[in-house]
Amino acid sequence: MCAGPAAELGVTLSVLAEADDASAALVVPSSPVGDHTEADAVHAFAQHCDVVTFDHEHVPAHVLDLLVAEGVELHPRPTALRFAQDKLAMRERLTELGIPCPRWTRADTAAEVTAFGDSVGWPVVAKTPRGGYDGKGVLVVSDAGELTAWLERADREGTGILLEERVPFRRELAVLLARSPSGQAAAWPVVETVQTDGICTEVLAPAPGLDAGLAAAAVHAGLTVAGALDVTGVLAVELFEVEGADGELSYVVNELAMRPHNSGHWSMDGAVTGQFEQHLRAVLDLPLGSPRPHGPWTVMANVLGGDYAELYPAYRHVMARDPEAKVHMYGKGVRPGRKIGHVNICGDDLADLRERARHAADYIQGTVTE
Amino acid sequence: MCAGPAAELGVTLSVLAEADDASAALVVPSSPVGDHTEADAVHAFAQHCDVVTFDHEHVPAHVLDLLVAEGVELHPRPTALRFAQDKLAMRERLTELGIPCPRWTRADTAAEVTAFGDSVGWPVVAKTPRGGYDGKGVLVVSDAGELTAWLERADREGTGILLEERVPFRRELAVLLARSPSGQAAAWPVVETVQTDGICTEVLAPAPGLDAGLAAAAVHAGLTVAGALDVTGVLAVELFEVEGADGELSYVVNELAMRPHNSGHWSMDGAVTGQFEQHLRAVLDLPLGSPRPHGPWTVMANVLGGDYAELYPAYRHVMARDPEAKVHMYGKGVRPGRKIGHVNICGDDLADLRERARHAADYIQGTVTE
Repeated sequence: MCAGPAAELGVTLSVLAEADDASAALVVPSSPVGDHTEADAVHAFAQHCDVVTFDHEHVPAHVLDLLVAEGVELHPRPTALRFAQDKLAMRERLTELGIPCPRWTRADTAAEVTAFGDSVGWPVVAKTPRGGYDGKGVLVVSDAGELTAWLERADREGTGILLEERVPFRRELAVLLARSPSGQAAAWPVVETVQTDGICTEVLAPAPGLDAGLAAAAVHAGLTVAGALDVTGVLAVELFEVEGADGELSYVVNELAMRPHNSGHWSMDGAVTGQFEQHLRAVLDLPLGSPRPHGPWTVMANVLGGDYAELYPAYRHVMARDPEAKVHMYGKGVRPGRKIGHVNICGDDLADLRERARHAADYIQGTVTE
Repeated sequence: MCAGPAAELGVTLSVLAEADDASAALVVPSSPVGDHTEADAVHAFAQHCDVVTFDHEHVPAHVLDLLVAEGVELHPRPTALRFAQDKLAMRERLTELGIPCPRWTRADTAAEVTAFGDSVGWPVVAKTPRGGYDGKGVLVVSDAGELTAWLERADREGTGILLEERVPFRRELAVLLARSPSGQAAAWPVVETVQTDGICTEVLAPAPGLDAGLAAAAVHAGLTVAGALDVTGVLAVELFEVEGADGELSYVVNELAMRPHNSGHWSMDGAVTGQFEQHLRAVLDLPLGSPRPHGPWTVMANVLGGDYAELYPAYRHVMARDPEAKVHMYGKGVRPGRKIGHVNICGDDLADLRERARHAADYIQGTVTE
């Protein structure tokens, strides 16, 4: 999704692709195939780049460290990226910074799990510190016994498990911003992310009815994190909105991602500067673009892998039904539940936009047929 | 500039490129090199395409006819495209359709030139029927003797010369629309195009202060032309706005272009559906997107080839000065006066937007330095 903005800016992209037919390779002329976990492949790739960035967090630290040692310009830098790669490191650092988090601990033994659960209340949320996404690597457990296999693996790998209290949140929010190596930062409005079965299915921009003070505090927290961690590129901070016993609203940070993020796809059509253009500008240390929205509301609905052979018939229906629907498909193989595209719609009537965006995405993914 | 929208829609592009380093080849993975005037090259290229379209009007008729004979899906079709390729054919057809045109004639001899000039008043505008653009192939002459070389060439080639009265216009306008093979059409608001030395340097969308009746009549004329000529894809109709002796405003058609056009570049950032996405949707016979503007005004300023070695220093200045400026560079070689990019800015204050867009373009092209 960086390909369009890169072409417009005259920035030449090159992608280390996982295969010849990887989705990025379909739209980027320079797309050598290689394994992002192999130092040699990443090293060879980096030699012909001025700046290297990432579309996921799974490049191993030793590979990144090698590139840094060679003087490759990496954004985000490994010193920042580790807080998106390792959830225990993230919790430690955010806590040091005074950023609100759920109560958490590192557990290496069943006794530690039991002690934490007894302290904060069961069930608790267990997370593998590394490698999880879209609900993978997360377990909600009511008893230390449910984590026996995880504890054994964590013991073998020396990683520990992150335990968090289960926060009774009202809804999920996200702060999306970009920060450049020079230190300029720009944040889009705080959005609401709607999850279904642990997968984001819808984003409302801006978050409807969000308290202005809470929005300002959340953006401030995002900027604080970006600055303190020296994040470069796009940073997504996922939040839970929490209602206190006194009715007062607050937030805790759920996750960090250091890349263009699902919660920012709305900006591709809904803001003066979309997140992929902004990420390019940030990692190239160009001045950042305006994050101003084009209108009152943008709704983004994800298209998940469904049961269909080809997209064209769905396009005909969706585009004819709604000339304002902006359809984005990723050229990925279809796999049930995988995010394979999204639809954005901008306008004045939020309820209407939600219905239309959801219908378009559902129709493309085959879960509605009229 | 179709590359971004194609990637988003999951449409795979292939470009018949004039050279390995042609600008389109830099952003489209499939870009075989070939000569668009050679039937064999175009034929071979078309074999792996579902639909073939054009980014200029200069593919020879015999090459197009061969493709049609082979059943290749071409949009626009040669039967429409000839009215954009041949200005005499265009004038004949528009006159048949009752579309307002400057007074015109075909001249093959000096005597015919003299008779026309004496009839409509000198000077007159002479045009080569084929191959002109950006002021090339156009001469303003006060005497038949100035056309001696043109008449000799026209005689050799059997083409004739198009003569038109010189219209004392108030300003230039353009109607931009798209039409699909199914017959659906959608028009963007009428824009004003500002020319400098025969080259479009600025577009104001919509045309400021345009009489609503005149705007409706102009759009109606565009839709009439698109339907009658069976245009498929984007059609640009360039107009002169004319003030009658009684002060009444009207228009005459100056030129037609059947492709995304400079007068529509504003739509890439200023409308729900940009002209390159719309052109793709039209030639693929997908339902068309909404041409609704995002806000009150969008100004587009062209970047012409100037005197600089690399763009990055200019980007830093322009982007830092104006976070709302949308910079589009084409990856073309720089040649004095050549259109090599453009800047769009959207907002509420037209005079302010014009100043900012012009400054950004001038700074990039090196004609201002602060």
